[in-house]
Amino acid sequence: MALLETSKYSQGSVLGSVNPDLGSERQTASFCVERLTALLDGGTEQTRIRRAVVEAIESDPVFSRENQYFQTQNERYEAAVRKAVHLQKKMHEMGWTENGPEYKYIYRALSGDVAFLLHRVFMRSISVLGSDKQIAKWIPLATQHKIIGSYAQTELGHGTYLQGLETTAVFDTATQEFILNTPKISAMKWWPGDMGRSATHTVVFAQLYIHGKCYGIHPFIVQIRSLQDHSLCPGITAGDIGPKMNFEHIDNGYLLLKNVRIPRENMLSKFCEVQPDGTYVRQGSQKINYFTMTTVRISLISDEVLTPLMKACTIAIRYSVVRRQSKLKPGEQEAKILDYQTQQEKLLPQLAAAYAFYFINDYLQELFNRGYTEIQRKNFDMLPELHALSSGFKAVITQHCTAGVEICLRACGGHGYSLLSGLPSLYTKILASCIYEGENTILLLQTARFLIKCFMAASAGQPVPPSVTYLAAVKHGKCPAKNKLDFLSPDIYTEAYQHVAVRLTSNTAAKLQGLIQSGVKKHDAWNQCTVQLVQAAKAHCHYIAVKNFAETVEKLETKAGIQKIMKHLCDLFALHGIFSNTGAFLHDGYMSAVQMDMVTASYLDLLAVIRKDAVPLVDAFDFTDKSLNSALGSYDGQVYQRLYEWAQRSPTNQV
Amino acid sequence: MALLETSKYSQGSVLGSVNPDLGSERQTASFCVERLTALLDGGTEQTRIRRAVVEAIESDPVFSRENQYFQTQNERYEAAVRKAVHLQKKMHEMGWTENGPEYKYIYRALSGDVAFLLHRVFMRSISVLGSDKQIAKWIPLATQHKIIGSYAQTELGHGTYLQGLETTAVFDTATQEFILNTPKISAMKWWPGDMGRSATHTVVFAQLYIHGKCYGIHPFIVQIRSLQDHSLCPGITAGDIGPKMNFEHIDNGYLLLKNVRIPRENMLSKFCEVQPDGTYVRQGSQKINYFTMTTVRISLISDEVLTPLMKACTIAIRYSVVRRQSKLKPGEQEAKILDYQTQQEKLLPQLAAAYAFYFINDYLQELFNRGYTEIQRKNFDMLPELHALSSGFKAVITQHCTAGVEICLRACGGHGYSLLSGLPSLYTKILASCIYEGENTILLLQTARFLIKCFMAASAGQPVPPSVTYLAAVKHGKCPAKNKLDFLSPDIYTEAYQHVAVRLTSNTAAKLQGLIQSGVKKHDAWNQCTVQLVQAAKAHCHYIAVKNFAETVEKLETKAGIQKIMKHLCDLFALHGIFSNTGAFLHDGYMSAVQMDMVTASYLDLLAVIRKDAVPLVDAFDFTDKSLNSALGSYDGQVYQRLYEWAQRSPTNQV
Repeated sequence: MALLETSKYSQGSVLGSVNPDLGSERQTASFCVERLTALLDGGTEQTRIRRAVVEAIESDPVFSRENQYFQTQNERYEAAVRKAVHLQKKMHEMGWTENGPEYKYIYRALSGDVAFLLHRVFMRSISVLGSDKQIAKWIPLATQHKIIGSYAQTELGHGTYLQGLETTAVFDTATQEFILNTPKISAMKWWPGDMGRSATHTVVFAQLYIHGKCYGIHPFIVQIRSLQDHSLCPGITAGDIGPKMNFEHIDNGYLLLKNVRIPRENMLSKFCEVQPDGTYVRQGSQKINYFTMTTVRISLISDEVLTPLMKACTIAIRYSVVRRQSKLKPGEQEAKILDYQTQQEKLLPQLAAAYAFYFINDYLQELFNRGYTEIQRKNFDMLPELHALSSGFKAVITQHCTAGVEICLRACGGHGYSLLSGLPSLYTKILASCIYEGENTILLLQTARFLIKCFMAASAGQPVPPSVTYLAAVKHGKCPAKNKLDFLSPDIYTEAYQHVAVRLTSNTAAKLQGLIQSGVKKHDAWNQCTVQLVQAAKAHCHYIAVKNFAETVEKLETKAGIQKIMKHLCDLFALHGIFSNTGAFLHDGYMSAVQMDMVTASYLDLLAVIRKDAVPLVDAFDFTDKSLNSALGSYDGQVYQRLYEWAQRSPTNQV
Repeated sequence: MALLETSKYSQGSVLGSVNPDLGSERQTASFCVERLTALLDGGTEQTRIRRAVVEAIESDPVFSRENQYFQTQNERYEAAVRKAVHLQKKMHEMGWTENGPEYKYIYRALSGDVAFLLHRVFMRSISVLGSDKQIAKWIPLATQHKIIGSYAQTELGHGTYLQGLETTAVFDTATQEFILNTPKISAMKWWPGDMGRSATHTVVFAQLYIHGKCYGIHPFIVQIRSLQDHSLCPGITAGDIGPKMNFEHIDNGYLLLKNVRIPRENMLSKFCEVQPDGTYVRQGSQKINYFTMTTVRISLISDEVLTPLMKACTIAIRYSVVRRQSKLKPGEQEAKILDYQTQQEKLLPQLAAAYAFYFINDYLQELFNRGYTEIQRKNFDMLPELHALSSGFKAVITQHCTAGVEICLRACGGHGYSLLSGLPSLYTKILASCIYEGENTILLLQTARFLIKCFMAASAGQPVPPSVTYLAAVKHGKCPAKNKLDFLSPDIYTEAYQHVAVRLTSNTAAKLQGLIQSGVKKHDAWNQCTVQLVQAAKAHCHYIAVKNFAETVEKLETKAGIQKIMKHLCDLFALHGIFSNTGAFLHDGYMSAVQMDMVTASYLDLLAVIRKDAVPLVDAFDFTDKSLNSALGSYDGQVYQRLYEWAQRSPTNQV
C-alpha cells in the first residue's frame, strides 16, 4: 500500500549515494584505511582472497540473508540446510578445498548462517577418538554426506561436569553389543546441534559398564535416524528443544535412548577398547586429544566473538555520525551524536577493545601453533599454560565483547532495538558464547587455579611458564607517572596492570592459605575465595592483553599513519580499563588520587582524538553491507530510507 | 512422536509435587513469607485483592500465555488484540473499574501482554492537553472504543529533542483547517504503539505554522483509518515498523502525512489556541502538564522494571537450588549451584537490589503524590526536584534492573538461554526501558544539571530542596569503621555513599568552572564534563536508595523475622555497591585499603547468610507459575520435566 509513496524517498538515486554526514568523516582519516585492512588480514594477498570469497558467496542468491529478520524458526532452519547443501556445490565449483586459503573465510562470509556445523565436530571426534579402522569406515561416509553426524554430550541435567553424565552403555558379551539407555529424565541428551531434525548419526557420551562395573565416560557412534526415510530408529526418541534466544537456524535437539543396541565396534577406541570377552584395555596418551579440545576455545574467538563486536562497532559508529540530536552549540544545526562525550565514551572503548582482542587472538593462535608442534614432539610441558590461557581468554573476551555489543545496541537508542539494525541478533548470538564451550566463571576458576599454583611455585623459587614469570616479582613500588602525558606511555600502564594482577593473585593466595591454616577444609576454603580468584584471573588476562597490544604497536610499520592510530587505540584500551576499575589500582596506593585524575584526563582527551578517525577505523574492518545486514550500518549511511524500505517487507504489513 | 515416551517422566504425579531440593529450602526460612508478601503489597487486604485479580485473569483461557514462546509476531499481535477486547468484558463482569482497588493489578496479572495501551495515552493526552469542549467530544468516543487512539510524537530522525520534530501543520484561514505534512523522510512518525495496524486516530505532534511563522510543537488529533472498513484515510500512509527485540504483540507503526486536512478544532487547545483569523493565543500554565509527563517515568518503574527483575530472581534462584553441578566436597553428591560463592555473588545482589528499588519506588510514589497535592495548590516549588529525581531514578533503576536480569539469565547457563526459561523475553523487554520515556544518559545529565545548580546554590549559602541539602555539607573526614562488623552499620555505609556523591558533584562542578574560567565556552565545557556528570548523578541516586532502604528497615516490624532479613538485604545492597565500585570510595582516602578489605569480608559473609533464605525471599514475591511462564522457575521446581514437555509443543517438532 505504501509502495507508491516510497519511491519519493528511496529511489536508486538516494540509496547508494553516501550520506554527506558520513562521507565527510572519511575525508579526514589520519591513516590509510586499505593498509590497515591489509594489516588485519595479514597481508594484501589475504585481503584479496577474502574479498573474492565474500564476493562469490554474497552474489549467490541461495546464500542471501535478506529476509532473515522476518523468518520463523522453521524457515531459518530450512534455509540453513539449503545453504549447507549448496555450499558443497559452490566449493566444488569454485575450487575451494578444506586445506585451501579460501576455506577460513567461508564461514565468516556466511555469517555462520548454515546448517550441519556439528557434522564437522562429529567427524573431528571420530578422527581424534577413533581407531584407524573406525576412521576408515566412518570418515568417507561423512565426507560424502551419506550420513549426517551430531555430537551428543550435554544432558538436561549435566553440562560442564562430564563425570556427572548419566547415560549408560552396558556391554553385553553374549551379543557383542553395547546397550544404551537414558535412565532418567536428567540424563536425556539436550542441546546437541543438528540433532533435533537433521542428524542420522551421533556420537553419544555415556558411562561404560562391563560386568556391572563402571569405567566412566566413553564415546559411542549411534545411528538415530533411518537412511531410507529419515524416521527415528527403534528405541530412539528425538526432537527439537524449541525456541532459543538466537540460533533459530540450528535444530538443537534432545535424545532419549531406550535399550538401543550398537555393535562393539561402535565404541570409539583409539584410547580405550572393550575386547570381546569384556576385558577393558586403555592405550596411548590422551594428552594430545585434551589439547585438541582446548584449542576449540581459541578457534571460536575470531568468528563467533570478535566479528560480532567489530560489526556492532561498525553499525553503531556509522549511525552515530548520521544521527543528529539536540544542539551542542546554541544556534547551530543539531549535532552528530558521536560529538557528545558520553556517546564517545560508550563506543570508542569498544572499538579499542575490538582491536586489542584482534591482536591477542593473533598472539594466542601463534602460541597454540607452537604448542601443537611441541606436543607432536611428545613435549607436553606447555599444556597447563595453554589450558589456562585458552580458558581465561575465552572467558574474558566473550564477556567483554558481549558487553560491548550490548553497549553498541543501546547507544543506538530506539533504532538499535529494531531487529532491522542488526544489533539485536548480534547480541543474542554472542551472548551464547559466554555459556558454550565452558561456562565463563568455571573457566576463569581454572585459570585462577593455574595462577595460584604458579604463584606458589614462583614464591618457592621454582620455575614457572613464561606467561606467569611476572608473578615471581612481587613489587611494592608506586606508579612513577608525574603528569597526564606519562599515562600515554605503555611502560607506565603495562606495569600498573602487572602490579594489579600480582597483587590480586598474591592476596588471594594468602587468604586461601590463611583459611586452610585456620582449619577450614581445602575445598571450603577454595569456595570462599572464588569471587576473588575470578578477579585475579581477569586481571591476569587483562594485563597480558594490554602488554600484547603495546608490543604489537611497537612492531608496526610507522608509515601511512597506522602505528600512530593504533598507539592511540592501545592507550585508550589501557586507560579505559583503569578508568573503569579505579579501585584495583588505588587499593594499595600503587596509584594516587592525583594520578587517577591524570588517567581520567588522558582518557577523556583520547576520546576526542580517536573520535576523528572513528569511521575510518570501522571502515578498515571491511564488512560489506550484506554481511552487516543492518539498516543502520551500511557503507552509504542512508539509515532512514533503509529502515522504511525494510519495514515494509515485514509479514505484519502483508496480513 | 515423542508423546508416548513422555508419560513415563511427566505424569501429573510428578509435576505438581515439589522437587525435594527446592522443598528443603523452604523449611528453614528465618522469617514468615506470607507476612513479607503482605508488607510488599501494603497490607493483607491488598494481597487478597491482588490474588483475586490474578486468579480471575489466569483462570480465563483468553488470557493464556501458554504458547507465547512459539508464536509469530502476527499471532502475538492478534492474541493481544483479543485480550484487550476481552478485558473490557472481563472488567464489566468482575465489577472492576478504573478507580477501583483491583485496577492496578490487572496489567501485572496480564504481564503487559495486551494491545491498545497507547489508547490510554491518547485519552490522557486529550484530558491533559485538550479544552473542555474537546474532552467532551473525544473522551466518550474513546471510552466506548468507538475510536482507537495512538500517540504520534517520535519521528524516524527525532526522539528526545522535541523541538527538532519536522512534521508540519500549516493553518489555512480560508478553510479553517490545518494541513499536515511529512516534509521529508526523517519526519516520518516512527515507533508509536498501536499505530501500525490498530489505531483509527492519533495525536500528532507537529510544528505549527500560521501565516508563514513557526510557533513550535503542538498536538493535533488526526483520523488515520476509516471507521467503516479500517482502510487508511486519504493522504495517510501507515504500517508496522517491523520486528523488534520484543514487544511482538504491539504494532509499533510509521505514519506519513500528505496534505492531510483537519478542522481547526482538532488542535488540542487547553494551553494554546489558533483563532479563526489565525491569531495565536497562549493561555494558562503548562506546569501541571509538565509534571504529568514527569510522573510517567515513575509510574513505569513498578510493572515494567521491578517486576521483570523480581521474576528473573525467582526463576534463577529456584533453578539454582534444583540444578546440581560438580562436587563441592569430594565424595559427596554434586552440589546445588547456589552453594557456590560465585553463583551467590551473581544472584543475591540482584535480589537485594530488587528489594532496594521496591522500597525506593514506594518512596518516590509517595513523594509524587505529595507533589501533586502541592501543584494543585499552585505551588510549583517541588517541580525541579521531582523532575531530577524521576529522571535519575528512571535511569538508575532501569539500568540496574536490566543488568540484573541479564545476570540472572547467564547464571542459568544453557537453560537460561532457552526461551522456555522465560528469561530471554524478560531481558529483551526490560532492555527497552533503558531507551523509552527518555534515554538514560540524557536523563542522568538532567539530574546532573540539577545537582550542579543546587551545589552552586548551596555553596553560596542559598536554600536547596530537601533531597540535596547534603551537598552543602562537604566533609573531608574519613570513614570511622574499625572492623568488618562496623560495615553492617547503616550509618557507616550511608555516610560513605553520601561522601562519594558530594565528592563527585563538587569535583565535577570545579572542573566545569575551571574550564569556563580558562576560556572554554559554556556548552563545550559542559560536554567535556558529561562522563563525570553522569557518574555524579548515579552516585546521588545510589546514595538516596541506600539511605531509603536503611530508613525503611528501621521502621519495619521486628516480629516474624522480617526486619532482620531485610536488614541483611539492605547491608548486602550497600556493600555490593561499594565492592563493585571500590575506586569511588578509596579515591580521596575516605576509606583505606584495610577498610576496603573489611567491606569485602563482610560482603562475602553476607552472601552465605542470605543464601539460606534465598528461596523464601523470592517466594515472597508471590508470582504464580503462569505469571512466571518459565520452565525453570515454577513453584514446584520440576525443571527438567517442564523443559521436555514444553519443547515438544514447538512448531519445529510438528513440521
